[in-house]
Amino acid sequence: MEVGTLHHVAMAVEDLDEAVETYQRLFGAEVETRDFIEGQGVEAVYLRLGDRRVELLAALGEDTPVGRFLARRGPGLHHVAFEVDDVREAMRELAEGGATVIDVEPRPGLGGGLVSFVHPESVHGVLVEVVERG
Amino acid sequence: MEVGTLHHVAMAVEDLDEAVETYQRLFGAEVETRDFIEGQGVEAVYLRLGDRRVELLAALGEDTPVGRFLARRGPGLHHVAFEVDDVREAMRELAEGGATVIDVEPRPGLGGGLVSFVHPESVHGVLVEVVERG
Repeated sequence: MEVGTLHHVAMAVEDLDEAVETYQRLFGAEVETRDFIEGQGVEAVYLRLGDRRVELLAALGEDTPVGRFLARRGPGLHHVAFEVDDVREAMRELAEGGATVIDVEPRPGLGGGLVSFVHPESVHGVLVEVVERG
Repeated sequence: MEVGTLHHVAMAVEDLDEAVETYQRLFGAEVETRDFIEGQGVEAVYLRLGDRRVELLAALGEDTPVGRFLARRGPGLHHVAFEVDDVREAMRELAEGGATVIDVEPRPGLGGGLVSFVHPESVHGVLVEVVERG
């Protein structure tokens, strides 16, 4: 598959405001987008760091994927996202390549772009998001 | 601080050859550098994905930071690296900003560039590496 490049790295956090303040203070990050993604059970922020992004994810409840992640592992690195031209085609190719695809049909991510996820069992314990460029 | 951008994302893996093969097969990654970093107790690979990198880390023994990480959490996302012009200056500014700096004096990272680490307790559970551009 033709993967463009790293799109963002996402961190699960307990307190979104505190975490935003930390990345601004330590790394000079700037808030690009902040929104609720109901389908993923999170409130999320894109922070710009130069020409790339860090995504901060806070759970909307304990019984959400990020809520369970935080209960199990605490705050920390949650997933990595790669950029592609066409999410649907990328998901087909990933499935053909042996990956366990979580979303056959993409859904809206932060900022409205189409995204799909690949299960960590296919990628040595790493949850991978694929984001459509554009 | 003036942080350039995301330099790479690093994953701890059990088997370096298997993991390299997975990233080549699924994401079209290309091996850029492979080397032992004795000071960090790892064998490491930089994979190119477009204009960025994924770093794969395999422990050189159980009693190394990555060996302990794997025993505790299993394979998965290990750290994120940001690019700066001057690692020593960045570390001074990070310490002034309240970060717990692991390496006051930078050390050679994969490929020979200078790197230092910031403790996860300062960054909401995320181990952050700072890499000198160039």
